[in-house]
Amino acid sequence: MKKLETIEQLKKSIIELKHENKSIGFVPTMGFLHEGHLSLIKKARENHDIVVLSIFVNPLQFGPNEDFERYPRDIHRDEQLALESGVDVLFAPTLKEMYPHSPSIKMKAISRVDVLCGKKREGHFDGVVTVLTKLFHLVQPDAAYFGQKDAQQVAVVEALVKDLNFPLQIISVPTVREENGLAKSSRNVYLTNSEKQEAPQLYRSLQYGVQAIENGERDPFAIVQMISTYLNEHTSGEVDYIEVYSYPSLEAVNVLQGNIIIAIAVQFQSARLIDNIIIEI
Amino acid sequence: MKKLETIEQLKKSIIELKHENKSIGFVPTMGFLHEGHLSLIKKARENHDIVVLSIFVNPLQFGPNEDFERYPRDIHRDEQLALESGVDVLFAPTLKEMYPHSPSIKMKAISRVDVLCGKKREGHFDGVVTVLTKLFHLVQPDAAYFGQKDAQQVAVVEALVKDLNFPLQIISVPTVREENGLAKSSRNVYLTNSEKQEAPQLYRSLQYGVQAIENGERDPFAIVQMISTYLNEHTSGEVDYIEVYSYPSLEAVNVLQGNIIIAIAVQFQSARLIDNIIIEI
Repeated sequence: MKKLETIEQLKKSIIELKHENKSIGFVPTMGFLHEGHLSLIKKARENHDIVVLSIFVNPLQFGPNEDFERYPRDIHRDEQLALESGVDVLFAPTLKEMYPHSPSIKMKAISRVDVLCGKKREGHFDGVVTVLTKLFHLVQPDAAYFGQKDAQQVAVVEALVKDLNFPLQIISVPTVREENGLAKSSRNVYLTNSEKQEAPQLYRSLQYGVQAIENGERDPFAIVQMISTYLNEHTSGEVDYIEVYSYPSLEAVNVLQGNIIIAIAVQFQSARLIDNIIIEI
Repeated sequence: MKKLETIEQLKKSIIELKHENKSIGFVPTMGFLHEGHLSLIKKARENHDIVVLSIFVNPLQFGPNEDFERYPRDIHRDEQLALESGVDVLFAPTLKEMYPHSPSIKMKAISRVDVLCGKKREGHFDGVVTVLTKLFHLVQPDAAYFGQKDAQQVAVVEALVKDLNFPLQIISVPTVREENGLAKSSRNVYLTNSEKQEAPQLYRSLQYGVQAIENGERDPFAIVQMISTYLNEHTSGEVDYIEVYSYPSLEAVNVLQGNIIIAIAVQFQSARLIDNIIIEI
């Protein structure tokens, strides 16, 4: 595995790989790798000659009151995991390397962003599309891999690629969960012991909603109500949102049909957890 | 020469060319080709295996009161000229092909834009960077060619490519002029006969400014004054701007040194002409 820290080094590698007509799978991450990331790497490993993993905690996608500074980092462990999971190129640039000067171009995500996590995280997806545009240009992958756990991110990135005709595919990979159902997340480390006991209830509340739909419920509001009651009864966390939309357009619907996402966010003491489920009705 | 009108056709061609490791030179235009464009094609022809020319009158870069509707078009003549000048792939998409739905992502050029033509053409360069981002992704060129006549465009596109790490080079080609000095432009067809007589004075006024600098003048304001007087005496057009900046940063300077652009715009009855000169002091 090559570990590269500068854009110059990466460019050289990519030019060589392109010249040899290697197919490149790309997994962009903010590091602190967990099994969710590893499942993306595994999928990319299956589909491509070369797997490029990037690790970059992107300040642009954090709000002023968010956890950029304390976002968990462990590059040595990440490096080991990347090596073990068959990554060919690990790109871990510095902040200065990615943003050497104030920007000349601003990118703004204007659809699929005013719902779910985007509603409270103003500018978050602007930061996501900006850093991904840069990384896509640097890595020139055939496909980029994202976890379905960040379903809104997948939807926004799909719109980015389609809108601006990026020559690559977006592949979303199912959420990896603990045995108890808790979605893997770098932010799970923030949970207190008692919160760790409750956190699996997020996924159970989603399954509870799906079961109601399978039993014939077609009113999105009823689903929201059921999940809300369930979460309030089963967790100490504060429900941030429970939303039901068409997917991937993330538009409100009156009647549940087609591809539907149920997505939730719960604020615990030191961690805000999200989860979602997508079903075809 | 292949003439392609759909993105699907273009994608297929580009994948093949990339697979064969062909070097691609790209000349993006709005059509109504003149010798300026042909000089870009010629330069690309010298440097690459394959030359791709695009013809697309991009509505995003026209303001509401600008000449999008009446912008001159002649695709048959363009096709002939492209063929004769050795273009391999002519990409001439429809509006629907380039903008099939309302955008999900907005791009905004925020530096180098509030001067020269950008000052009065609000949003113009946002439209330029958006369409170029799409075209760069579709064509995946090794280099893209632009005329130095649109010096601000060159500066903004250089910033775009650098800021977002596009994997391509921007090459600017000197302005092609009539024998009398008038810069070639698609908009020259709008000139009345008497305006045609006066139009060469634009370039002469720039040369007059350069001469003063060569004679030792280092005050940008003095240069502006001289050119202003010259233009008012020699043309019936209304001077829109005369500006002197560092290049390519397009920043105001107190003393002329380094790379300097002198740029002017003159509004005639039905055409607004621009010209510029870049000198190293």
